[in-house]
Amino acid sequence: MLNKLVVIGVGLIGGSFALDLKRAGLVREVVGVGRSAENLERALQLQVIDRAETDARVAVADADLVLLATPVGQMGAVLAHIAPVLPRHTIVTDAGSTKRDVVALYRAHLADSLDRCIPAHPIAGSDLSGAAAARYGLFEQRNVVLCPLAETAVEAKERVAALWSACGANIVTLDAARHDAVFAAVSHLPHLLAFAYMNSVLDRPDADLCLELAATGFRDFTRIAGSHPEMWRDIALANRTGLLADLKGFRAELDRLIVQLEVSDAAAMTDRFARASTARAGWGKRKK
Amino acid sequence: MLNKLVVIGVGLIGGSFALDLKRAGLVREVVGVGRSAENLERALQLQVIDRAETDARVAVADADLVLLATPVGQMGAVLAHIAPVLPRHTIVTDAGSTKRDVVALYRAHLADSLDRCIPAHPIAGSDLSGAAAARYGLFEQRNVVLCPLAETAVEAKERVAALWSACGANIVTLDAARHDAVFAAVSHLPHLLAFAYMNSVLDRPDADLCLELAATGFRDFTRIAGSHPEMWRDIALANRTGLLADLKGFRAELDRLIVQLEVSDAAAMTDRFARASTARAGWGKRKK
Repeated sequence: MLNKLVVIGVGLIGGSFALDLKRAGLVREVVGVGRSAENLERALQLQVIDRAETDARVAVADADLVLLATPVGQMGAVLAHIAPVLPRHTIVTDAGSTKRDVVALYRAHLADSLDRCIPAHPIAGSDLSGAAAARYGLFEQRNVVLCPLAETAVEAKERVAALWSACGANIVTLDAARHDAVFAAVSHLPHLLAFAYMNSVLDRPDADLCLELAATGFRDFTRIAGSHPEMWRDIALANRTGLLADLKGFRAELDRLIVQLEVSDAAAMTDRFARASTARAGWGKRKK
Repeated sequence: MLNKLVVIGVGLIGGSFALDLKRAGLVREVVGVGRSAENLERALQLQVIDRAETDARVAVADADLVLLATPVGQMGAVLAHIAPVLPRHTIVTDAGSTKRDVVALYRAHLADSLDRCIPAHPIAGSDLSGAAAARYGLFEQRNVVLCPLAETAVEAKERVAALWSACGANIVTLDAARHDAVFAAVSHLPHLLAFAYMNSVLDRPDADLCLELAATGFRDFTRIAGSHPEMWRDIALANRTGLLADLKGFRAELDRLIVQLEVSDAAAMTDRFARASTARAGWGKRKK
């Protein structure tokens, strides 16, 4: 039971975490902090939070747990702001999509309280954002990756793990570098490819006709191109080195495909398409 | 009302077309033709077809309409086989995903009956295939593109259009070259990118962990990578020239993105991501 949970950034992730913990009776009071008064007002109306604060320093007084659920690009400023007043017992966690950079922020701003810091990444992204997107059960059967520091106290990790478990999530522990490599491959790269693909269609002189006739394959392939531009810019920049390697790996695969198509190498194309298709079909069955 | 509809290739498309026309009372008998006895047996069990034939020449006797719903790569052989015995009044249409090559097949094999030929493309693909995937209402509110030849009789076009309309589809008329350019962009390119992306993940040493932690973004982005390998190889080869141009256009966009990330050009990335995101969000609203 938490007496006071402070959610800094009341959007899809922070809001849904608050909703689940409130419903489970695991938190007495949720205080929401954010830059948009309108979004906080909406969060209050929807009972995602119990109280709104515009100043995170005021909010964190007596907090048991602080969840940083802002875009990663804002977390440094938030940590710098709250560090001087953060109570000694407060556990700090986050929901950032990249982890090495967030680890560096904890080390920079909370060097004396690293035992209370537990970097985390709930894998429940969406193209939706804002408090209005928050919903019960968002984390049901989803993975939450915890990236404990060497300094993180076991009890801080276990307390945060227990809260995510109460939301129905499955806990996975990885070090931050491994986390960033995996999510560059399965999340950040596809988002960048979807943005790039969407732009390549928009650049066509017949873009309007293309969009008019585009159907379900296009719909699913481009869904993540509807994602939040600034958030994904920040993620791309934060995970720049690994992502660049993956972008170049993908480009090499694309170059091979272009050559196969140029020389009409039907056998090579069949092999590569079949390998992808079999793996994707198997993945789909396992994930159901 | 058709007395006899012959569906050559009883899969998702051909089977669903037959089901809808039977339910609407627009066809007396559906004869299914295919290479797989097992698939035809399944189609009979599911009452997708009324009768199965292994020889298309036997099947087309007295047919009012022949729908070629095999992969495009098999259509030439099928047309060559049935051409000598095809009744003079039989309308021939198809469901091929590419149209210039299918137009060339009609011209090569049915040169004396082009008034009866109406190339078509129902836009209702799926990663599912086979007679068991056929279902009622598949074409509801979907586009069916008709690519009439200069020689196509108006009554042949209108009869086929009326049947697709009866399936709930919206009829769009385009010339074959325009069709192929549009579908290279909105369908063929994303399929090839999804195959290539899936292979780039499978090539990683940590592929298993990646697939374990991949979530909804990955799921949607790669759904079409589960598509039929031979069918998509045929489509890629059939639409090779346009598709190569689009692959290279995409690669150029990718190269620009790589440079932006290499020099950490946040402003350029924000602009491009925002443009893609706004366009995709708008498309999603219009298509709902």
